Amino acid sequence: MEDCLFCKIVDGTIPSAKVYEDEDVLAFKDINPQAPVHVLIIPKRHISGADKLKRSDDKLLGKLVAVANQLAKELGISETGYRLISNIGDDAGQSVHHLHIHLIGGKVLNWDN
Amino acid sequence: MEDCLFCKIVDGTIPSAKVYEDEDVLAFKDINPQAPVHVLIIPKRHISGADKLKRSDDKLLGKLVAVANQLAKELGISETGYRLISNIGDDAGQSVHHLHIHLIGGKVLNWDN
Repeated sequence: MEDCLFCKIVDGTIPSAKVYEDEDVLAFKDINPQAPVHVLIIPKRHISGADKLKRSDDKLLGKLVAVANQLAKELGISETGYRLISNIGDDAGQSVHHLHIHLIGGKVLNWDN
Repeated sequence: MEDCLFCKIVDGTIPSAKVYEDEDVLAFKDINPQAPVHVLIIPKRHISGADKLKRSDDKLLGKLVAVANQLAKELGISETGYRLISNIGDDAGQSVHHLHIHLIGGKVLNWDN
């Protein structure tokens, strides 16, 4: 999608600190990390948010979460714990309207919403 | 699973404020809500956490998220926004070791981890 920041990261127009890539999925470090580990896992195909996932996207969603879990292991937080977050819309502070799962860990996370 | 709080909620041994139920999925209000809307969406089958999801669970995961999105509409937060969270392990404060997705909304959510 034109004017989508994450589509530009997918196509390489905008650089990112990639930590994982395959034909469907890209993962890169959040530019504004909230914890020692803060990675965004996104589908390469443009989907505007988790609210727009269809049941035909089940395999893609499963892959996104599988990549998140694999990265948690590789980044050393699978034993200590981590949080997966998807923000939808303004109240949640969704800043980029391209589906992304936040993988956050490496410290004790507050439960402050 | 014996001694699993959410399995007991699934089998009715422990009551809950149910908002959705089908053959695979149960959703109920969080007993300690962090926002005006705070619902937990769980699989009836015991899976200890999102880290234990297998690719063979893709359809189940897709259904959990579809139910979350549907409940966001029914509970009036689909336009204002909401957050989906899954906590894994101690650093994230996972208090019950039965997979659950938090659906949180109805106010502006901080980004404080």
